Amino acid sequence: MYRKEIKVMDCTIRDGGLMNKWQFDVPLVKGVYEGLVEAGVDYMEIGYLSSEKYFSRDEVGPWKFCAEEDLRKVVGDGEAKIKMSAMADIGRIDLDAIPPCEDSLLDMIRVACYVHQMDKAIFLAEHCLDKGYEVTINLMAVSTVNVRDLNEALNDVANSRVPIFYLVDSFGSFYQESIEFLMDTYQKALPGKIIGFHGHNNMQLAMSNTISALMKGSELLDATLLGIGRGAGNCPIEILVAFLKNPKLRLLPLLQIIQDHILPLQRTIEWGYHIPYLITGALNQHPRSAIARMASEQKDDFVSFMKELHDYELLE
Amino acid sequence: MYRKEIKVMDCTIRDGGLMNKWQFDVPLVKGVYEGLVEAGVDYMEIGYLSSEKYFSRDEVGPWKFCAEEDLRKVVGDGEAKIKMSAMADIGRIDLDAIPPCEDSLLDMIRVACYVHQMDKAIFLAEHCLDKGYEVTINLMAVSTVNVRDLNEALNDVANSRVPIFYLVDSFGSFYQESIEFLMDTYQKALPGKIIGFHGHNNMQLAMSNTISALMKGSELLDATLLGIGRGAGNCPIEILVAFLKNPKLRLLPLLQIIQDHILPLQRTIEWGYHIPYLITGALNQHPRSAIARMASEQKDDFVSFMKELHDYELLE
Repeated sequence: MYRKEIKVMDCTIRDGGLMNKWQFDVPLVKGVYEGLVEAGVDYMEIGYLSSEKYFSRDEVGPWKFCAEEDLRKVVGDGEAKIKMSAMADIGRIDLDAIPPCEDSLLDMIRVACYVHQMDKAIFLAEHCLDKGYEVTINLMAVSTVNVRDLNEALNDVANSRVPIFYLVDSFGSFYQESIEFLMDTYQKALPGKIIGFHGHNNMQLAMSNTISALMKGSELLDATLLGIGRGAGNCPIEILVAFLKNPKLRLLPLLQIIQDHILPLQRTIEWGYHIPYLITGALNQHPRSAIARMASEQKDDFVSFMKELHDYELLE
Repeated sequence: MYRKEIKVMDCTIRDGGLMNKWQFDVPLVKGVYEGLVEAGVDYMEIGYLSSEKYFSRDEVGPWKFCAEEDLRKVVGDGEAKIKMSAMADIGRIDLDAIPPCEDSLLDMIRVACYVHQMDKAIFLAEHCLDKGYEVTINLMAVSTVNVRDLNEALNDVANSRVPIFYLVDSFGSFYQESIEFLMDTYQKALPGKIIGFHGHNNMQLAMSNTISALMKGSELLDATLLGIGRGAGNCPIEILVAFLKNPKLRLLPLLQIIQDHILPLQRTIEWGYHIPYLITGALNQHPRSAIARMASEQKDDFVSFMKELHDYELLE
């Protein structure tokens, strides 16, 4: 099924950065950038847009801020050869610190929010629109949002100027049926808007849920090299590109970046499917307890981990 | 969606044995057996049924033969507390060597075959039926079978007494759409027969393809602990059981076996998603080249591996 309108967003540095506090060195980020350009990927999300008063450069790397001088080290002279994106969290970026799009190497700003932050998210998103950026709102943790709150949030988005809205499986708890139901819900509530999809791999379903979203009309698909990302990680971009078979996309440059830059990272950062992530995903809980467990000496004692979780009897 | 008729088949020892020539020691196999019993899993496939003149015990472990005295070491005295299965390959077992079911600890024999072996498969399967076993035929590599050959094979199965037929994704090359198409095809051609499903994880789709088969009416689902199996491995049984939420099944005993017996195996046997398996899966090729590559010193050079495969330009 050939769908020309499909666009792929690589989140390797932004989501992968959750695993190492965005402390990727410039040659790695430059390698990822050049490989994505060669592969024909549509967007590269290079990090978070944050103000320095909220985070210390002693603790987090440059891709937590996406300062223009750091982006320039990756892109080199002139315009970027791929659309560049950064994610903004509510309350972590001062509006005045966002330059007009014409003065920035960034093309897109994605606003991540929880349902009770939707008013603030729309305010920030429309501010970025007015500065010339492409803009999305990514509603997190929708698997825990009740119907009335979701309807109100979708109604607010429908009445906003924000053109792209994301279905995000924050906890990696969605099956194909949930994706299909929410895609239908989002599309019905948001006529004329593009729906994006961002999955997590707690139940080894990130790739198939991405296919399900695509089949239901999602046009902007998130993925990362070798699935790198927080916890169980994301949809692996190399599997997605092999599936899409889109004439604009090439697989070999992605394999080259993976073997040159991403595979070596696995010696220092651990991501991907592990049982603690399955447990939090299947219980529809935030992965933070699983992430903490995986960083501890008890990481292989799944049984006691599961028994420590509230409501674990639901799954026993 | 609660479907009482769903049955789960654990293939840990049989399919996992492809990775270590079935050289699992008795305490491990006994641990798997006891855990599966406690978890309420329906079937345990403990190995292959082969005649000793075709393989040497110096090279392969006891689960390549499934001799009664070896099965007895696992089950202990009395009847087995779970249905026990063994797989038979065409031409690797002498009919006279198969005892009547009443004299065996095995309850089921699954006959694996390629499409051009269907006559032999039906002959062997009906022989096993006559000896009192539950019997399946598992048609391998259907992703490379043309329509006419498949129709003829399905017609032969329809006219046989064999009650269960398996959809097998041998190369890990199927997407959800392929599973749905073949489930429809098999069910239409084989009225009154049960369809089983066996997936592989080359494109991280073993779990979701199992869900797709289930949604389309498959009632017998193969899986293994932590997805252990040849190459990219199988559908992980712990994810499947967490998904099914079937009252007869329990997750915790599976997690206990994994942490006691399967996770330690990962130090000596490597299975699961790796890029060479993605490449052979996406190219619809047998994984043997990827398995050889993963056992070599060049296992991390994906780019040259891909370029060595015939037809790699299809994916480039």
